[in-house]
Order: sequence, then C-alpha cells, then structure tokens
Amino acid sequence: MDSSIRMAILGGDARYLEMIKKLSENDNLKMELVGFDQLNQGFTGIKQTDFEELETESLDVIVLPIPGTDEEGYIDTIFSNQKIQLKEEWFDTLAKDCLIFSGITTPYLSKCVKKSGLKLIPLMDRDDVAIYNSIPTTEGTIMLAIQHTNFTIHSARIVVLGMGRVGLSVASKFSGLGANVAVGTRKDVDVARAFEMGMQGFHMEELPAYTGQCDILINTIPSKVVTESALNLMKSNALIIDLASKPGGVDFVYAKKRGITAIHALGLPGMVAPKTAGEILGNVINQLITQIKESGEKRQC
Amino acid sequence: MDSSIRMAILGGDARYLEMIKKLSENDNLKMELVGFDQLNQGFTGIKQTDFEELETESLDVIVLPIPGTDEEGYIDTIFSNQKIQLKEEWFDTLAKDCLIFSGITTPYLSKCVKKSGLKLIPLMDRDDVAIYNSIPTTEGTIMLAIQHTNFTIHSARIVVLGMGRVGLSVASKFSGLGANVAVGTRKDVDVARAFEMGMQGFHMEELPAYTGQCDILINTIPSKVVTESALNLMKSNALIIDLASKPGGVDFVYAKKRGITAIHALGLPGMVAPKTAGEILGNVINQLITQIKESGEKRQC
Repeated sequence: MDSSIRMAILGGDARYLEMIKKLSENDNLKMELVGFDQLNQGFTGIKQTDFEELETESLDVIVLPIPGTDEEGYIDTIFSNQKIQLKEEWFDTLAKDCLIFSGITTPYLSKCVKKSGLKLIPLMDRDDVAIYNSIPTTEGTIMLAIQHTNFTIHSARIVVLGMGRVGLSVASKFSGLGANVAVGTRKDVDVARAFEMGMQGFHMEELPAYTGQCDILINTIPSKVVTESALNLMKSNALIIDLASKPGGVDFVYAKKRGITAIHALGLPGMVAPKTAGEILGNVINQLITQIKESGEKRQC
Repeated sequence: MDSSIRMAILGGDARYLEMIKKLSENDNLKMELVGFDQLNQGFTGIKQTDFEELETESLDVIVLPIPGTDEEGYIDTIFSNQKIQLKEEWFDTLAKDCLIFSGITTPYLSKCVKKSGLKLIPLMDRDDVAIYNSIPTTEGTIMLAIQHTNFTIHSARIVVLGMGRVGLSVASKFSGLGANVAVGTRKDVDVARAFEMGMQGFHMEELPAYTGQCDILINTIPSKVVTESALNLMKSNALIIDLASKPGGVDFVYAKKRGITAIHALGLPGMVAPKTAGEILGNVINQLITQIKESGEKRQC
C-alpha cells in the first residue's frame, strides 16, 4: 500500500520556498509545485506541474498562497507569469477528504470549499501559528522602533496594548531590552501577568493616563482603541506602531493631525524573516498532515 | 563669590544638541556655544560666541567634538560654515586648571595639551561611557542583524567574541531575544560568567569549532581574531558584524573572498540613538565637573 501523501503547492511568495524546503524533509510527502516555473533555483526531486495537468482527484493536500484566492478565484503566483484561477467547478474535482491549506480565507474561497464539502485550514487563524509568527513580528517591531526614534529602547517608556498572542511576545522582549513597559489590557488576569513579568499592567480605560509620558506606543488590539482622548496627551515626537490587522486600532487621521508618526506595520514576518516565516508554515503543515493521517489510519483499523 | 562654571562648547555633531540640553539643566554652568551659528533652533538662554571673541583665559571647561582635532588642529563644526583651528598657541591662552573634554584624542591634540600643561579627558576612553554607549551599540547591532538576515534572531546560533564592556551587553541582549549565544573569550572568568548567564563560553583558540554552525558572528575584540581558519568553516550565508574600532578584528578581504557578508559597524550610538548618545555625554560631563569642583573646594577649605 502506498502510504505517501500527495500534495500540490499552488503559488506563493518567498516564504513558500523555505516552507517547501522544510516539507521536503518529510519522506512521506510526494510534492508537486504549480506556479513556480520562473524560479531560478529549482528544488531537487520535486516535480513542477502545469496547472491544467494536475491530477486533482488523487491529491491528499493542497497548499494555497497565504492570501487564499481573490474574489474571482485567482491566486498569487510570484514565481510565474501564469495566471491561475480556481473556479468553483475546480473544487468539485478534488477528493472529498482532500485537505486545503491557506494563510487566511476569503469569502470566495470559503464559499467554494463549503459548496464542495471540503476542509480548509486557514493557518493564520491557528493560535500556534500566531504565536510562532509573533517572534518575527516582535523582531520587526524592534527594528522599526530602533529605526524611527533617536533614543534607545533601553530606558524608553513603552506602552503595549493587548496581552494576546502578539502582545505578550512584544511586551516581554521590549522589557528584556531594558525598556519600561506598561501593558494595557481588558482582563484582570493579564494585568496580573504583566505585573508578574516585572511590567506595569493597567486597564484600557486608564489609557489616557499612560499616553502622556509614553515614548513608543505599540498596539496589538484589532479594534479602534487609540482614539482622540488617548492621542491628545501624547508627545508629538512619540512613535506609534500598530500591529493589528486592517483597519488597525489607531485613529491614524487624528495622529497625523497631531504630528505623531504612526506606522501600520503589517506582514512583518514575511518582511524581516521570510526564511523563519516559511519554516513555521512548513513545520505546522507537516505536523497537521501527520496528525490527520494518523487519526485516519486509526479509524481504518 | 561666583560659584558658576564657565564652559565653552566648540563644535560637535547632532549628539551635542542633546548633550547641551542635558548640560543646561545644571544651573551652575555658564555655557557658550562656538560653531553652532547655523543651528535653526536655538537654545534659550545659551550664548553663541564667535571663536575669536571667546575669553579663553576665564574658561573652566572646554568641550571639543568627539573626534578631537585633526592633525592641523581643525575641529568638526557641523552646524557652522566657520573653519575653526586650534593652534598650539591657542592652548597657551587657557587657564592652567581648564579642563578639556573630547571623545577621543589625536597625536596633535595630545601634544598641544601636554605642552600647555592642561588636563584632557577623552570621554570614550572611560569605562562608564563605554558601558553606557554599549546600550545603543547593542541596539544598532540588533537592527543590523534583523535587516541583514532572512531569519529571526530568536533560535539563531550566535557567536559573540569578547566579553568586555560591549561584548557582555551584546551577548546578554541577544540571549534575551531567544538566540543561542556562545561567547568566545581569553579569560576563564568570562567563560564562567557566560555559563552563569545561560550562554555557552569557550576559549578563543576553540573558535574554528564554533564558526561552522554559526548564523551570526559578532566581534568586539580590537585585534585580528577572525582569521582564515575561523572563516574557512563558516556558512557563506552567515553574517559577520564587527564592532571593534578600526581596523577591526575580521579578515574582511578573506570574508569577501568566501562570499560572507561582513559589516564593520562603527559609530552605531550616533547613528541609531543620537539623543541617548548625547544624554550620556551630558550626564558624564556634568558628573565629572561636579566631582572635580567639589574636590577643588575641599582642597581650598
């Protein structure tokens, strides 16, 4: 019995090269690459396939680019001139137990997957991936803080908003560099955790009392929390870095009016550490398909 | 009795603006600025003086630019078009107990000061200044490491050479960011200290055994320690950051031949954190003139 897993990787960016390297360490995987035809450096032993020639019905796993598909089904193919469109009917050609990975999902992709009864795993929604990715995100934030200020992070007064998967990493690493970190959060438990870690914890409604003395404000909360009342007291030479996904948590228009530099920093892992970001994806996919395969085999026994 | 200290600041760069701000907090100081005439933003209550009009004989303290003078006595005046030359005779016009500060000294400056029987304090030679400056140096090194690699500092294998004033700061902060740090040193006591701090310590002669697996090598030793034998085993995609003053401690020609990126990063404090770098200078000068004044007053009693 052939116990190998047939996987097709459809498009992707620089991160996917490292992901493919990582996945190729798994001897059980039979990989095919679609949309990598302009890649100068090939991968030894991995097949490049045209989209039209893909034997979709025999695939166990499909990996789509991080952004999934657009609203017409097109996918990003950085390493190819080919335009690849995944039409609704295309999903019907896949086996019912074919697993689809993407970074995030889009309404079109969710609709197609649901209609065809398939399973989609948007990797960026997973807590473990978010925590692994918070490492390059934090380092990117450190880089921005050093580049955009004329003072050191050490001894600077830094406010971090949110103590979730990203906020915790950011706060602890800035604190480790010698900054005075205060963490704003909605939860008593997080105020306690901040205190335990040698930082100051405060409730979000107290934010305006903290912004006046703050040198750098880093937001990780994906709702409008840095409003006029918080910005009013801020020094005009303070720096704001917003890590929350679009539209972010900062009133950018009002910050600009007050002359405060506010950076909406998205996609830092792919920018500062594409190799690590790719390895994170490769590791998690490897782990998930092994788990799913093992649970499938158990069910067959 | 007028207990105030008359100080002239002759030239300087962006760091000096913060230094002047810091010094102006000292009410005992009567400051005059020479070579700051093109500064857009003035300093309230601080006198700008032409070099020729300076009453040199009544000065208690003179602050020269970081590089001191060149070999003809000229000093850097970033904020002026005036060329200022400190001739040998000029030093003779100063009071014998006039204190002169600079960053470093030069043969010309040392000669003039000695001939006139004056006291020169090259601030960068001081251990405390070197340790304070190691903070922005470390943050600049972190920035370079993030900018010039495609992986995170977290989990990277980093070799730091030297466990002195800069090496200790660099090693501990990279370790705090989650890197696997090994420190190469000549002293048993530093191998022990590295171990205590949760890092690996090794003796310099073992260096070639550590470079093969190393992702980033950071040198702080000001003698040629990263030689062919150390570079031979290094991965070509490794990064070398040399923080040692000119000519540095790395065989840059051989590194280039091997295709390894090697950056000789000098003057990082002024580049990444001129405000902090200026405050450090202001704080130390304030502290030193207070100490010297107090010891002088004690002698008079």
